[in-house]
Amino acid sequence: MKRQGAFAAVIAILMLAALPAAAQDPLPSWNDTGPKKAILAFVAKVTKQGTPDFVPPTQRIATFDNDGTLWIEQPMYVQFEFMVDRVKLQAAAHPEWKTEEPFASLIEGDFKRALARGEQDIVAAMSATHAGMSTESFERIAREWIRTKRDARFKRPYITLVYQPMLELLNYLRANGFKTFIVSGGGVEFMRAFAEDAYGIPPDQVVGSSGKLKYQMRGDVPEILKLPAVDFVDDKDGKVIGIQKFIGRRPIAAFGNSDGDLQMLEWTAAGKGPRLALLVHHTDAAREWAYDRGSHVGALDKALDIAIAKKWTVVSMKDDWNAIFPKQ
Amino acid sequence: MKRQGAFAAVIAILMLAALPAAAQDPLPSWNDTGPKKAILAFVAKVTKQGTPDFVPPTQRIATFDNDGTLWIEQPMYVQFEFMVDRVKLQAAAHPEWKTEEPFASLIEGDFKRALARGEQDIVAAMSATHAGMSTESFERIAREWIRTKRDARFKRPYITLVYQPMLELLNYLRANGFKTFIVSGGGVEFMRAFAEDAYGIPPDQVVGSSGKLKYQMRGDVPEILKLPAVDFVDDKDGKVIGIQKFIGRRPIAAFGNSDGDLQMLEWTAAGKGPRLALLVHHTDAAREWAYDRGSHVGALDKALDIAIAKKWTVVSMKDDWNAIFPKQ
Repeated sequence: MKRQGAFAAVIAILMLAALPAAAQDPLPSWNDTGPKKAILAFVAKVTKQGTPDFVPPTQRIATFDNDGTLWIEQPMYVQFEFMVDRVKLQAAAHPEWKTEEPFASLIEGDFKRALARGEQDIVAAMSATHAGMSTESFERIAREWIRTKRDARFKRPYITLVYQPMLELLNYLRANGFKTFIVSGGGVEFMRAFAEDAYGIPPDQVVGSSGKLKYQMRGDVPEILKLPAVDFVDDKDGKVIGIQKFIGRRPIAAFGNSDGDLQMLEWTAAGKGPRLALLVHHTDAAREWAYDRGSHVGALDKALDIAIAKKWTVVSMKDDWNAIFPKQ
Repeated sequence: MKRQGAFAAVIAILMLAALPAAAQDPLPSWNDTGPKKAILAFVAKVTKQGTPDFVPPTQRIATFDNDGTLWIEQPMYVQFEFMVDRVKLQAAAHPEWKTEEPFASLIEGDFKRALARGEQDIVAAMSATHAGMSTESFERIAREWIRTKRDARFKRPYITLVYQPMLELLNYLRANGFKTFIVSGGGVEFMRAFAEDAYGIPPDQVVGSSGKLKYQMRGDVPEILKLPAVDFVDDKDGKVIGIQKFIGRRPIAAFGNSDGDLQMLEWTAAGKGPRLALLVHHTDAAREWAYDRGSHVGALDKALDIAIAKKWTVVSMKDDWNAIFPKQ
């Protein structure tokens, strides 16, 4: 009995030693304002066993938009910058692009003119730059580019232009038994090339837009070829469909920043029990960018009105975050 | 220093106490024959740090076919039995089904005649029984049916007709850092209704065939409607495409039982480093079923020849498994 008592004391000491983080602030880049309080209260509620609000770990699904929610999306989606670089690299082999849209405008760096005709041009540019190669070749190209290409304003590689408060939030949720997913309009193969290193989110937890694929043999080596055809667009209603197709369970927490995230937040919030629906509002022109209604990327208009009406959590980057990017 | 020494001793004792399983056989339902040895050797190899064969846990992806690999598929796919029961339940509201194929034959229980015209009839029957309702309604119906409907020969609910050796294998792989996925031709929503309870595989780790979906409001309540149209067929080449679409990383281990699994095993085996490609061969008419070439479900023909030629692992249920189903 004595020995067991000593063991119990040692175990208690070991457990205390293993839990120094519990006393630390899990969200140090978040100011002690409303959004941080809402997040902490939500997590405390769903993890408290023996209460009606308790949610078993297997159902703690959290979904995150990527562009503008986890990393930068101004002055143009990062993946579009990648597309432009790919077009420029391939231009020598395509003399017809000098006069053919959207390629001519993309080579000149005029995004607005390049995409003026809408979806057909985006699909044409994506097909020319994201298809006609194996998935493994594409991954190598995208992985290298994201690690080395620098943003024009911040002079940092794109992989470092992720939001420090959201990195803390991802870790905090995972430490509390949540499974974290990306559900984004971005290309799934592009996002998978950095999501694990940047966010700790493995490829199978990345849901995104995608092109059609073909399994084939190159000689006696099998490969998966990326075809120049759209398979799935993970935006607006498509985000809810993407959640069902790829995750198969309704999230209890969802995070976005634009009207493209409205349906995902609506679907998440409409479930039974405690829910967290959160919008990042870009209000910080000095440290990042300030934009919402009418922005050419990441427009936040209808979703902002609904968030306010439904009392969803709205983060003002300027007021609620004391850091934007990780320290370099 | 003395106190630290005592602590170290206590920690060592606690660690030993926490690891009794290490000395136990993790695969007791597997005989000590070739397949078990191949599995143990493979896992030992990829988990041994500091060797060229070591695979980091994030890349330990294992994919399993479902029908005939994790649970029974004779005399007819379980999901087809479910379809028949749904047709019979709905028959009163569809007097035209008395003469209309495939419904007339399904109601009579004549599978072969029902499906004689091929894919168009399967799609018609699936559309009539698996669509036109919300995903949540379908899940409730499927979940209840799988737990209560009994197999005609074994007189057990289908959810108990899973293979005990494969349950042990799933647990053993997960205990060694593997992430386990289903990659099956079965309907994804049908499989998700039992995969977590039966196999410990959560909905987002189930890849399957699927119908199109629509997000809509019913009054002010959002729902996802199952549409009567095929979206994706997860069979043959489709299994490799499904792996890329949903998992985004090549497996290092894959498990199947039929020609529909050939491409998945081929894709898995063609990667660099140690690989495990395993086929379950149904050789036990006394305890389960015996079938391979020419079977109307789960035909194993070309894949068996290739498995032998490429020295993949082939399990003979009769010789290599000492139990088939879990004890009741």
